[in-house]
Amino acid sequence: MTPIIGHFINGQLVLDTARSQAVYNPSTGQVSKQVALASKATVEEAIAAAQAAFADWRNAPVLKRVRIMFKFKELLEANRDQICALIGEEHGKIVHDAAGELQRGIENVEYACAAPEFLKGEFSKNVGPGVDSWSEFQPLGVVAGITPFNFPAMVPLWMFPMALVCGNCFVLKPSERNPSASLYLAQLLQQAGLPDGVFNVVNGDKEAVDVLLAHEQIQAVSFVGSTPVARYIYATATAHGKRCQALGGAKNHAIVMPDADLDNVVNSLLGAAFGSSGERCMALSVVVAVGDALADRLVAQISTAMTGLKVGAYSDGGNDFGPVITAAHKEKVEGYIASAAEQGATLVVDGRGVQPAGYETGFFVGATLIDHVTPDMLSYQEEIFGPVLQIVRVDTMQEAMALINRHIYGNGTCIYTRDGEAARYFSDHIQVGMVGINIPLPVPVAYHSFGGWKQSLFGDLGAYGPDGARFYTRRKTITQRWPTAEVREGASFSMPTLG
Amino acid sequence: MTPIIGHFINGQLVLDTARSQAVYNPSTGQVSKQVALASKATVEEAIAAAQAAFADWRNAPVLKRVRIMFKFKELLEANRDQICALIGEEHGKIVHDAAGELQRGIENVEYACAAPEFLKGEFSKNVGPGVDSWSEFQPLGVVAGITPFNFPAMVPLWMFPMALVCGNCFVLKPSERNPSASLYLAQLLQQAGLPDGVFNVVNGDKEAVDVLLAHEQIQAVSFVGSTPVARYIYATATAHGKRCQALGGAKNHAIVMPDADLDNVVNSLLGAAFGSSGERCMALSVVVAVGDALADRLVAQISTAMTGLKVGAYSDGGNDFGPVITAAHKEKVEGYIASAAEQGATLVVDGRGVQPAGYETGFFVGATLIDHVTPDMLSYQEEIFGPVLQIVRVDTMQEAMALINRHIYGNGTCIYTRDGEAARYFSDHIQVGMVGINIPLPVPVAYHSFGGWKQSLFGDLGAYGPDGARFYTRRKTITQRWPTAEVREGASFSMPTLG
Amino acid sequence: MTPIIGHFINGQLVLDTARSQAVYNPSTGQVSKQVALASKATVEEAIAAAQAAFADWRNAPVLKRVRIMFKFKELLEANRDQICALIGEEHGKIVHDAAGELQRGIENVEYACAAPEFLKGEFSKNVGPGVDSWSEFQPLGVVAGITPFNFPAMVPLWMFPMALVCGNCFVLKPSERNPSASLYLAQLLQQAGLPDGVFNVVNGDKEAVDVLLAHEQIQAVSFVGSTPVARYIYATATAHGKRCQALGGAKNHAIVMPDADLDNVVNSLLGAAFGSSGERCMALSVVVAVGDALADRLVAQISTAMTGLKVGAYSDGGNDFGPVITAAHKEKVEGYIASAAEQGATLVVDGRGVQPAGYETGFFVGATLIDHVTPDMLSYQEEIFGPVLQIVRVDTMQEAMALINRHIYGNGTCIYTRDGEAARYFSDHIQVGMVGINIPLPVPVAYHSFGGWKQSLFGDLGAYGPDGARFYTRRKTITQRWPTAEVREGASFSMPTLG
Amino acid sequence: MTPIIGHFINGQLVLDTARSQAVYNPSTGQVSKQVALASKATVEEAIAAAQAAFADWRNAPVLKRVRIMFKFKELLEANRDQICALIGEEHGKIVHDAAGELQRGIENVEYACAAPEFLKGEFSKNVGPGVDSWSEFQPLGVVAGITPFNFPAMVPLWMFPMALVCGNCFVLKPSERNPSASLYLAQLLQQAGLPDGVFNVVNGDKEAVDVLLAHEQIQAVSFVGSTPVARYIYATATAHGKRCQALGGAKNHAIVMPDADLDNVVNSLLGAAFGSSGERCMALSVVVAVGDALADRLVAQISTAMTGLKVGAYSDGGNDFGPVITAAHKEKVEGYIASAAEQGATLVVDGRGVQPAGYETGFFVGATLIDHVTPDMLSYQEEIFGPVLQIVRVDTMQEAMALINRHIYGNGTCIYTRDGEAARYFSDHIQVGMVGINIPLPVPVAYHSFGGWKQSLFGDLGAYGPDGARFYTRRKTITQRWPTAEVREGASFSMPTLG
Repeated sequence: MTPIIGHFINGQLVLDTARSQAVYNPSTGQVSKQVALASKATVEEAIAAAQAAFADWRNAPVLKRVRIMFKFKELLEANRDQICALIGEEHGKIVHDAAGELQRGIENVEYACAAPEFLKGEFSKNVGPGVDSWSEFQPLGVVAGITPFNFPAMVPLWMFPMALVCGNCFVLKPSERNPSASLYLAQLLQQAGLPDGVFNVVNGDKEAVDVLLAHEQIQAVSFVGSTPVARYIYATATAHGKRCQALGGAKNHAIVMPDADLDNVVNSLLGAAFGSSGERCMALSVVVAVGDALADRLVAQISTAMTGLKVGAYSDGGNDFGPVITAAHKEKVEGYIASAAEQGATLVVDGRGVQPAGYETGFFVGATLIDHVTPDMLSYQEEIFGPVLQIVRVDTMQEAMALINRHIYGNGTCIYTRDGEAARYFSDHIQVGMVGINIPLPVPVAYHSFGGWKQSLFGDLGAYGPDGARFYTRRKTITQRWPTAEVREGASFSMPTLG
Repeated sequence: MTPIIGHFINGQLVLDTARSQAVYNPSTGQVSKQVALASKATVEEAIAAAQAAFADWRNAPVLKRVRIMFKFKELLEANRDQICALIGEEHGKIVHDAAGELQRGIENVEYACAAPEFLKGEFSKNVGPGVDSWSEFQPLGVVAGITPFNFPAMVPLWMFPMALVCGNCFVLKPSERNPSASLYLAQLLQQAGLPDGVFNVVNGDKEAVDVLLAHEQIQAVSFVGSTPVARYIYATATAHGKRCQALGGAKNHAIVMPDADLDNVVNSLLGAAFGSSGERCMALSVVVAVGDALADRLVAQISTAMTGLKVGAYSDGGNDFGPVITAAHKEKVEGYIASAAEQGATLVVDGRGVQPAGYETGFFVGATLIDHVTPDMLSYQEEIFGPVLQIVRVDTMQEAMALINRHIYGNGTCIYTRDGEAARYFSDHIQVGMVGINIPLPVPVAYHSFGGWKQSLFGDLGAYGPDGARFYTRRKTITQRWPTAEVREGASFSMPTLG
Repeated sequence: MTPIIGHFINGQLVLDTARSQAVYNPSTGQVSKQVALASKATVEEAIAAAQAAFADWRNAPVLKRVRIMFKFKELLEANRDQICALIGEEHGKIVHDAAGELQRGIENVEYACAAPEFLKGEFSKNVGPGVDSWSEFQPLGVVAGITPFNFPAMVPLWMFPMALVCGNCFVLKPSERNPSASLYLAQLLQQAGLPDGVFNVVNGDKEAVDVLLAHEQIQAVSFVGSTPVARYIYATATAHGKRCQALGGAKNHAIVMPDADLDNVVNSLLGAAFGSSGERCMALSVVVAVGDALADRLVAQISTAMTGLKVGAYSDGGNDFGPVITAAHKEKVEGYIASAAEQGATLVVDGRGVQPAGYETGFFVGATLIDHVTPDMLSYQEEIFGPVLQIVRVDTMQEAMALINRHIYGNGTCIYTRDGEAARYFSDHIQVGMVGINIPLPVPVAYHSFGGWKQSLFGDLGAYGPDGARFYTRRKTITQRWPTAEVREGASFSMPTLG
Repeated sequence: MTPIIGHFINGQLVLDTARSQAVYNPSTGQVSKQVALASKATVEEAIAAAQAAFADWRNAPVLKRVRIMFKFKELLEANRDQICALIGEEHGKIVHDAAGELQRGIENVEYACAAPEFLKGEFSKNVGPGVDSWSEFQPLGVVAGITPFNFPAMVPLWMFPMALVCGNCFVLKPSERNPSASLYLAQLLQQAGLPDGVFNVVNGDKEAVDVLLAHEQIQAVSFVGSTPVARYIYATATAHGKRCQALGGAKNHAIVMPDADLDNVVNSLLGAAFGSSGERCMALSVVVAVGDALADRLVAQISTAMTGLKVGAYSDGGNDFGPVITAAHKEKVEGYIASAAEQGATLVVDGRGVQPAGYETGFFVGATLIDHVTPDMLSYQEEIFGPVLQIVRVDTMQEAMALINRHIYGNGTCIYTRDGEAARYFSDHIQVGMVGINIPLPVPVAYHSFGGWKQSLFGDLGAYGPDGARFYTRRKTITQRWPTAEVREGASFSMPTLG
């Protein structure tokens, strides 16, 4: 019998087996576990546990909250292999890639340890005669996170460490494709000393999500996923009066300028395009080559370099990337490849049909390179989320930038150049939230914040870093004047009579 | 023929007379002007003008933008009387109250002059070996402000000075009850050197609002008004993917503790309750007296003090407050008074039927004091927005705080005490965004931010101050690595051959 | 033969035995070890090691530096008992007091982990057309810390964690009275992964100090000690062109107001006055009682409570405080007691002659209470640094504040009251850097900064916290404009010819 | 009879004629005025006036202080021509250059208007259970500025606007060469509403300076001048226990890389080298050309361009630069030119002996270009402070950087390149405080701070901007806990008995 993955509520692993769903090992294509899908009652139970824990948790000095994060970091590092194995088994990403994901997540825990610094309010003396005013950033209460399959550990870690150190309680609904890492994190948090009820995990599908979006005790919702769902989450949570940040899809372009060092470009592009099978919202999926001559050389070098890529099961550290998440997704990615060819693009390297030996039933798509892609093609317009790199050829940098600025997404982008002026003009004028200069995956470090523009993010504030702190707190402004100096001056004239 | 008030688009006063609506002088109850109600086309014209002006305006160095605000401040001060007269005539507030409103508005202009400071991004050296990362807070594009009748100058000034110095272009839709002040401000901005198109005013009603909420070039919406409309604005703007901050209604309580200095309490309460006829979202409308003995003394002193209040036309500086905004609103306020009496409260002072000599047709309601109000009464549950002060009696401070925390609004609140512990406990645990300690109207100064909690504000970020800067900008994070030291080292070996 | 304590230079324990000095166990009064006194050459060796390590250390990404601090925190916690024993043995403070000292030190390590946040520079786009400007806070190079006997672990931990995460290398000269804790910390740092040479300890006396003050590779000096030495350090280091912060002595007063809760006052005063034998620069050594009636009650309650205090050896956790540091210091403290009596004060409790059983040769002074102290007495004017609490009686709060403001020191102070107005007036107008409201030892937490006013601190910036970060870094401001758009536009017209 | 320039003390122009000194018009070489040299008593009078004004000024809400600066800005702009004429007449710089100086000064006034933002302290809730802590940045008291002849308006404006808005009172001792601008500024401040005594000007020489350095009521000293004097000021002020920032001399190098756009280099270099006769601490006085070929072209282009430079009297806006400050200084500059030639350098353009028609007795030195300068030459090692540009030739960028890093000064520097990597490496590793990328005069804008490294600045904090705010304030940290909830809970049980 396959094991059933439940929920983590009020410090306990709980099961809720009315509904469940298969969890696959994408490397083999086999069902490995079942995951319970929370009912409304279960989600409400998690919210109630969180709400009950809130009063004490918000009152705990921030240093006390932060010390649990210091300990949590230690435990994450001590249990690295275990977490990476869970990620690999359910997601399919190679162990070294899972380790990279986890490391990025740990960096958010490290930043959360700086809460005493970033939670400081602003104090103004004498805003009027004898009047002082200051701000406090108080926690919201119970907040929810809804996270995607592609980073089962990192994206939750973008959210809850910041939310918790700010004094909130948390209900996490991870992806039902790979729920185990979240549950493991919950147990490590408990081991680190987190009081029960402060952090809860509910597994589930839209039923659970809709409870979170509508429940009046949920104060804020953080979401990462595809744009259509992000739009739904944002509209629904806000229609219920909540604050919401909903991060959606992407189509990340790299402009390669004629003065770029091509060896460097090719080396760094491969990982950015094919790492984690391209299932990253920051995956570099379009190269905009300025000039045909450059494009010809670039395509030649990339296709040569791609011959060395190894695709296979997550557990073999020698592989470069693994399967995609489901059979359906494999089909969808292959459909985009077919459509590009049909619409006139050149299939330089076709990854369809790859079957690593011993893993013939896994959900594999090989690295794919498509040249002569144009903006009207479906494969250009939509997010593929697979190991597919497309080349668009343009004549000028202005044309390249116009292309990027016209796309509906604005998550990440990059320029390859060594010219200071080109880089500065690009980063100033490109309508994209995260910009790399010779950095193909410009994910901001944990002490900055993550956020795309346009349809890649709905909301005002990005994920983690300083924006995370602001998102998970409510400003309270106190203005204070004390009445006449009765006690102070009273003390002065009443004393002699006592002497 | 009554004059028609039009719009200010692309540096020009324009008329759009298909639809218009009467503007009243509330002190006389007479129609004084007509205001044009913008059609969809007119609003789109304003948006287009703003969009066209954006490219140059966002590129202007912040110091250049700020210097226009320095000049604008001078012009506001030089034209103080003129602006206050416009406010008084259309809103009804007494000239000294209008002057106070304007001064608060000017303080936002002063703060906007600090943009070079508050727009600084964060720079991190060596986020990795040879990799730097920094954030820039870039303008959004065209943003909209929708403002209420009760502060025809101040609330617009909460919004556009901050939006403009951040590099945005602006479309303001002021209240159709008193549109003139906004148009006047637009002209002063132009005189201060603002390029045409950067700031635009459209007058109108829901038709205009709905265009702003749905138009794809509007990046963000700031709203101040009642909670039902705020909820609509927030849900609609966000459903269109925009960022939105929507400030709604309030029910601001003051707790009076037994150790409070009653003379001081009464003095400061009168203005807070009746100033501007109570048509302020920070008006102090409920006093929670702790202990009956205190309540008795308080009611006695307040009712005595109220006998000195003078109600009348805006133009007489000797008056304390003026009419309410419309005949319908007068009726509504009087209805709340009636309902309180019907539901069992004690009408200590009844302001209904007040008719200042010479202004018998004005929309006046006199200062009203109601005692023995209980939480189940309609007059307690809803925002009256009139010169009505209600007394709720409780036995303990905990009971007082529970009462406040149960209310759906969380805008402002105050405690009167001289005890440090009571004040600190109150400000920590009260579920209200703006807290006064012996300050009945704790409106944050311009260098802090304005924002209530619960149903008093939808969104993450408050109005003006640091939150305003964050709301009107989009974070962009650049991560930069330069390729190999070709030029630098090339310089080193190539030189000798040139020598 | 007594063990000899050496130095820690370039990752090695080294001896330098030309000169040495006895280290006592103050609880027994016996010599327990010898400490080597560094020669000029030894100090120069340490500086050279630090200078050699600087180039790599400053280039290490801040996250790498910070992770060593994360690990260091773990090691400090794991070795708590060992460190406290070293402190107790050489300083005499009771183990629970040593644990408190260490915990405060660890909090500085925790704050240092926030370096990625507090080291961020300020980035300004478009300071002129096409011109950007930003600041970087770069490390200074080799910096020195000279620390006192009274906190052998905490004061070094105020300094070097901040200095190191900012990218500096460090030479510590701890007190020659109790050098062992510093050496132990050095070894834990190494174990945490700190590269050799980055942190060095030299033991010594004025000879070593003078090398540090004059050496051209020492960029900055942090000092904590007595005011005469602080003045010398400040004048000498600055005369050599260095930056310097020199923290000196104190005379910390608590005002007790008539509305204070006396039980609470007495409870909290005892520890603040007698803890660590009063050998703390934040020790509360003067109580200013407002009104004779209050003073009488206060003296009665304090003297009663003092009967329960236990004085004895560091190793017995049941003791309240231990010996003073040396026989000479014991004599000096007793001299102040005698002088107070001679000058007319009332010796309420006389701690002279205390000899805990089994420790008759230890350097003990018992808790002493002196009443009717006046500002002209020597015991009032100078810092006693012993377990002596003095009472000054005044009639008014103004008189109490004037007294404090006239004293040459301005380190810490406190008021006991429950009145908000009195507290606010006090904290606003008192000429003291660290102010407590009902907090007798208002040492700022690690994420704020420590610093007195007047002769308690020479320099602009306090110790640790945000000031520490600023002190240990040099601002560099870069202003950048890129030349004409050659590459960018060149790309645009040259491409077609390649097509 | 020549007019005598006195002092401005307590709102009055006062004379103190015991000693005086000639003030020259450098364009004519004639004495135009006398300046009184303050006696010890006069300086003490100014300090006493400032001290007397302090209590009220520090208590004024910051917004009130700031509004005087808003007004002062208006007055500076309205009196621009008058101020520039005063500068030109006594300093000799051409009117357009004086206007630039004044504009830079006004920018500091604009920044000072942001004081409500930059003076905010840090507020931390719950640093322990029920304990809050916050910092306030309080003014120091009376502070002094001692300013140089080369920027008679700008350098004072670097200092006092920041000092005043922070709540300090100020005593300015401007250069006795050109004292009139300061007195004029003092009068405008008064006109802007500054209370008497808050700002005072004393003219004088070392006698006055020494009073300021030693007087116990002077809390801080800001100085700008030559390094030997800066060193004296720093050592003396600190020996008196004061905080001090002393900005000294400079030798600012520009590296020209082979990829630089030479036309751009030459255009921007001329002003940077010869503007204001090179009498600027940020003057670009050394060009380091990488490669002989480049050097040859550069020297050719510069010398050609220099033929168009016009030297003459301040009043003719067509001139490029004017005379140096004194006859003695002219002689000194010419001495450096002679020495360079004697030590083997090539005098490409020799500016000695220039005598503009009609101004034959003025203190003129023409623009001078010297090639083949080497580090061992006197003209390279010392600051010339005249219109002399020297070329050093090196083979590599590393060599160029080593040269700069070896110099005793570290004020400003610049690199000309279009290569991102070279620029980043340079700005990271160069030991200079203010770095330009293609910006020859990288003076930080007013919202950043000015400060060199090494012997160009003694102290921790730079001038103006955020550092200025920190320098002119003292941190006070308040830690607050309120005693038991007596009033709050008392209220709860005592009420029924009152009912």
